[in-house]
Amino acid sequence: MKKKVAIVGATGIAGQQFIPALQDHPWYEITGLAASARNAGKTYAKALRDEKTGALRWWCEGFPSTELQGMTVQLADDLDASQYDVVFTAIDTEPARELEPKYAQTTPVISTVSAFRMEPDVPMLIPGVNSDHLKLLDAQRANRGWKGFVTPIPNCTTCGLAITLAPLHRAFGLDKVIMTSMQAISGAGRSPGVLALDIIDNVIPFISGEEEKVQRETQKLLGTLGNGSVVPADFAVSCTCTRVAVLDGHTETVVVSTKEPCNVEQAAAAMRAFGKEIAKLPSGPEHLIHVHEDPFHPQPRVDREAGDGMTTTVGRLRPDSALGGVKYVLLSHNTKMGAAKGAVLVAELLQQNGYL
Amino acid sequence: MKKKVAIVGATGIAGQQFIPALQDHPWYEITGLAASARNAGKTYAKALRDEKTGALRWWCEGFPSTELQGMTVQLADDLDASQYDVVFTAIDTEPARELEPKYAQTTPVISTVSAFRMEPDVPMLIPGVNSDHLKLLDAQRANRGWKGFVTPIPNCTTCGLAITLAPLHRAFGLDKVIMTSMQAISGAGRSPGVLALDIIDNVIPFISGEEEKVQRETQKLLGTLGNGSVVPADFAVSCTCTRVAVLDGHTETVVVSTKEPCNVEQAAAAMRAFGKEIAKLPSGPEHLIHVHEDPFHPQPRVDREAGDGMTTTVGRLRPDSALGGVKYVLLSHNTKMGAAKGAVLVAELLQQNGYL
Amino acid sequence: MKKKVAIVGATGIAGQQFIPALQDHPWYEITGLAASARNAGKTYAKALRDEKTGALRWWCEGFPSTELQGMTVQLADDLDASQYDVVFTAIDTEPARELEPKYAQTTPVISTVSAFRMEPDVPMLIPGVNSDHLKLLDAQRANRGWKGFVTPIPNCTTCGLAITLAPLHRAFGLDKVIMTSMQAISGAGRSPGVLALDIIDNVIPFISGEEEKVQRETQKLLGTLGNGSVVPADFAVSCTCTRVAVLDGHTETVVVSTKEPCNVEQAAAAMRAFGKEIAKLPSGPEHLIHVHEDPFHPQPRVDREAGDGMTTTVGRLRPDSALGGVKYVLLSHNTKMGAAKGAVLVAELLQQNGYL
Amino acid sequence: MKKKVAIVGATGIAGQQFIPALQDHPWYEITGLAASARNAGKTYAKALRDEKTGALRWWCEGFPSTELQGMTVQLADDLDASQYDVVFTAIDTEPARELEPKYAQTTPVISTVSAFRMEPDVPMLIPGVNSDHLKLLDAQRANRGWKGFVTPIPNCTTCGLAITLAPLHRAFGLDKVIMTSMQAISGAGRSPGVLALDIIDNVIPFISGEEEKVQRETQKLLGTLGNGSVVPADFAVSCTCTRVAVLDGHTETVVVSTKEPCNVEQAAAAMRAFGKEIAKLPSGPEHLIHVHEDPFHPQPRVDREAGDGMTTTVGRLRPDSALGGVKYVLLSHNTKMGAAKGAVLVAELLQQNGYL
Repeated sequence: MKKKVAIVGATGIAGQQFIPALQDHPWYEITGLAASARNAGKTYAKALRDEKTGALRWWCEGFPSTELQGMTVQLADDLDASQYDVVFTAIDTEPARELEPKYAQTTPVISTVSAFRMEPDVPMLIPGVNSDHLKLLDAQRANRGWKGFVTPIPNCTTCGLAITLAPLHRAFGLDKVIMTSMQAISGAGRSPGVLALDIIDNVIPFISGEEEKVQRETQKLLGTLGNGSVVPADFAVSCTCTRVAVLDGHTETVVVSTKEPCNVEQAAAAMRAFGKEIAKLPSGPEHLIHVHEDPFHPQPRVDREAGDGMTTTVGRLRPDSALGGVKYVLLSHNTKMGAAKGAVLVAELLQQNGYL
Repeated sequence: MKKKVAIVGATGIAGQQFIPALQDHPWYEITGLAASARNAGKTYAKALRDEKTGALRWWCEGFPSTELQGMTVQLADDLDASQYDVVFTAIDTEPARELEPKYAQTTPVISTVSAFRMEPDVPMLIPGVNSDHLKLLDAQRANRGWKGFVTPIPNCTTCGLAITLAPLHRAFGLDKVIMTSMQAISGAGRSPGVLALDIIDNVIPFISGEEEKVQRETQKLLGTLGNGSVVPADFAVSCTCTRVAVLDGHTETVVVSTKEPCNVEQAAAAMRAFGKEIAKLPSGPEHLIHVHEDPFHPQPRVDREAGDGMTTTVGRLRPDSALGGVKYVLLSHNTKMGAAKGAVLVAELLQQNGYL
Repeated sequence: MKKKVAIVGATGIAGQQFIPALQDHPWYEITGLAASARNAGKTYAKALRDEKTGALRWWCEGFPSTELQGMTVQLADDLDASQYDVVFTAIDTEPARELEPKYAQTTPVISTVSAFRMEPDVPMLIPGVNSDHLKLLDAQRANRGWKGFVTPIPNCTTCGLAITLAPLHRAFGLDKVIMTSMQAISGAGRSPGVLALDIIDNVIPFISGEEEKVQRETQKLLGTLGNGSVVPADFAVSCTCTRVAVLDGHTETVVVSTKEPCNVEQAAAAMRAFGKEIAKLPSGPEHLIHVHEDPFHPQPRVDREAGDGMTTTVGRLRPDSALGGVKYVLLSHNTKMGAAKGAVLVAELLQQNGYL
Repeated sequence: MKKKVAIVGATGIAGQQFIPALQDHPWYEITGLAASARNAGKTYAKALRDEKTGALRWWCEGFPSTELQGMTVQLADDLDASQYDVVFTAIDTEPARELEPKYAQTTPVISTVSAFRMEPDVPMLIPGVNSDHLKLLDAQRANRGWKGFVTPIPNCTTCGLAITLAPLHRAFGLDKVIMTSMQAISGAGRSPGVLALDIIDNVIPFISGEEEKVQRETQKLLGTLGNGSVVPADFAVSCTCTRVAVLDGHTETVVVSTKEPCNVEQAAAAMRAFGKEIAKLPSGPEHLIHVHEDPFHPQPRVDREAGDGMTTTVGRLRPDSALGGVKYVLLSHNTKMGAAKGAVLVAELLQQNGYL
């Protein structure tokens, strides 16, 4: 018997990405779709059509099954979460602040939204990286008196960074991290998204709020589970986040120094050995991190689909002459591992551990 | 009376860029054009046409004057440098090793080529940054018994980095520098250049040899003039050089720590005050560095033509939480300040100082 | 004494384009700026800043003069048109339907908007192409009892097509015209404009309403002046309008058949001889049409600035084996000749003829 | 027992595309790889590495199996074709003129090269479009005394045009065809291919020789089988071929007039019903032509993988006001149906008909 799943925000681009991530899933069945008033009450097929122009507003791989197309989209405000085993949310921050706690009274909520990421009793999970943080859900339930819980995934730019830092932090202890991102335009979504006039033949050197998010989320993700909260890791993180003319896949250049000495071979070995346990989960990749030898990789267009978009590719691992540590370039699929499919992987981890 | 100028490598894209840089110059007149055997003996107009397809092979702003179009292209090997007051070279490294010393026996050679950049008695000049290094030319002439000399400009990626570091180094003493570049495709030229199949919807995270060049050239540029050579600056430089789908303009993210404390306001003030003396040179921009307040700048497509391509634009100047210094994003026009027009600026500096 | 000019819609991208077109104009002085309620009452400098992010919302060449920056933006609804010699409008169609007639009661209105293009007593002018249609303004004034008038410029995609067809129609009589456009993204503006996610590595084969506009506007533009209206030309026009990843410059492939025989040399000669009279106007290019011999041209990025964006470049003129006529590729700068600067050229023509 | 297959030109991009097309094929097994002297004698894995930089020179989906990686690349000149049941060639035209006839003495050769396309006794096959032309192979064998034969696939730009014209020609008889292509950069390959400097923010309005090829190949493809040759179809074809910044997928706008009246519904019905018989072949798509109702399609990035790259997508089918026929936009995957995978489909057709 598959678990029953609802997708809230199912008509937006972030919500749509749950469809290919869940449609043929061995453990989950989509039995609910919800959206805002504009689309509620329509069939999903109709909600995906622009009424004026007839244009299809579907932006992902594959296409919803005939069954999903015929499903009526519910109003997110009215969704009866108790009908589902898990609710995935992909909505704006403001409505999330109200709706996610409401759903969580009865049901586990896995969220792509930033609303609750930094609350003390809320774990932000990346399976294989900080799976032990899921125990914080017990505290959250106790604190809030919920049967369910809210657990958000991190920002898509944080995701690849935290995954590649984790094995170094565990083995050598991180001291300083300096990162520059070259982020894909899909990270900005479509409302309003990035205008072609602004990015063709161009780089935009600023993404409002992004650097602060990545810095504090990385520290929380790699922190240690304390008494009812996560004690953030104490290494310094300094980011510069930019946007480039790439459709999907965030590239990040990373320089790290470690507390214990760490050379290139040790770093590569630690990365290669990391996260093998999640390969057993249905959405888990064989390699959480792939360390590439060819210096011309990772390239977003060429490498983003590694592990069906769930593998973070690392390349150019080499000594760093400024901090005395190592440096590398990473690539993470921002709309797969860093979004819906990453949230599904969290569901799988929770289920494996009896939380779903 | 204008000085007589020859351009060697005049049919390639790097050589062509000297035409708009010199064509209406108040001090210089192009009286010689030279190239390899394939084009020698043709008029410049004919050399710029593909014989088979009739396609024009001109890739720069403006167009050569009628007079230049009618000028016969000489064989670079046979160029009589003594007929010119200065020779600009834009050729491959291998032929440069032979030809530049030959020309230098009689004539000052300003080179866009890397062949001699790291030789002890060869200054690599950026006017306003290390103008005092030109005295090394006296040593070079003495050492080599030349009437002329060879002085190369730095790599286009080094150029913007060194310009923005210079005021910080002077005022506060640099300790560590960590840089990531997002370089324009024009930096790779056209032989073979970057294929569209490799860069559309993509980032290439490696440019062979580039990082090492930038690291050592920066230290030499900001070094101090010793006895017959430059003593490289002793701060650490660590680079990651990438290629992005931008036509012109290298973007670089920079994190620096300094020996003396330096906050954002001090750094901005030092940059803004820097290099004013070169505004008097014909190709010198009013501002060598423009510090932008708008966090969405610099953007290569929007800001590259600042100061007619001779101003380096700095933006996002802010404190750095990892090294405790400052960080910023810079933009430098790689085919203007970082190439032909930068070489012309060197000529102007040399002339102002009696070396031409 | 320069004529006084107001720009209505001055904060949008289409309105901003009037600033570089008018700022150093020998005949006109910008003395009024107007916009909708969101920006009215602010200085122009303040209206061009995003309040939240501090980002500059200026998307054109150059920058408004200090004087213009300090000018207070008026509410378009309240603009007293009688204070100006001419009003340029760049607003949405709906408000234009109300505002343009209101302004026209006292003042000539030159519009970039489609609202009145197809009204019988409204000429749609391209100087050099159908300058004689300006006489229709007498009828318009008589009909409507206005001191001023409304005269819109055509759609930017129509513009280059009509310019290149006009000499062929005059000399040989057009029979059939088949056109495919590859339109620049700037043609869609910024509200909402074209998303990068939709156009990178892509072509969009449909622009809603565009083909019908181009077909009927071309017939009106090349029609003959009748009694109080234009009798549309009777040749057939069939268009396919697509969007490509080009910033500025609409490329169009055109196949034509003519009533009288017309070979390639005759077509080229007719195009080259065409429109010389407008070279005398301040914004008029030396060549209204440039016929390129190099088969690799026109290219939008390389050729769009020909004649400061006012020359239409034609290339690949050759016989057509299907209709027995000629075919060619044209390039027209959609945000210069096809927009604000084209409207300024209309003002110049009107002034030359005593209508301003 | 699978048939034994050799790929000649296996290290180039066009040859590499045969690997994913054949690697898991139910009927074929790759037992030979051949290339020019530069790569002959190396293992395939080694031939795919750049010796200097270590960069992988593999540009397609998937990756060669371990077995293929270990296979030694033979010298194309020395290949013993008699060891294979079929030879696929993807080499330059000049060597093809010599090698293809040599291989054909013993073995069927299916070629992606243009060398023999227009020879009278050489059929150029698109399964489903002109399958009956394969009988010309009997004449070819008789004429030339070969046990094998040479059969080339058409140019990638011809392919989608001919497929969509075929049902109209059969049902209504074509009169005139006017086509504009917006071709992907992959169509130009990598030697030298399209430079990013030439196509970003640009359109190139000319592809040397392409228009003539498409015109005459279309007439041959849709011609009728005569006595030892194909009698070309007599409708007129007029093309304008351009290059746009798209990675894969040729978009073409098409205007047709027919001898018998043909309205939009009839045209759509004819296209939809067409080519069903090839769905049974292993590489045959379920729909040879998909007629899209959404006016914003076909889009190359979104629709190119339809039918695993073997379906031609048609959209915007509507009446044409100039010729009185219909017009539409088509999209064909130039490196799948228009290249290696299309050649494999030809092999399947030939085998089904006893020619392999």
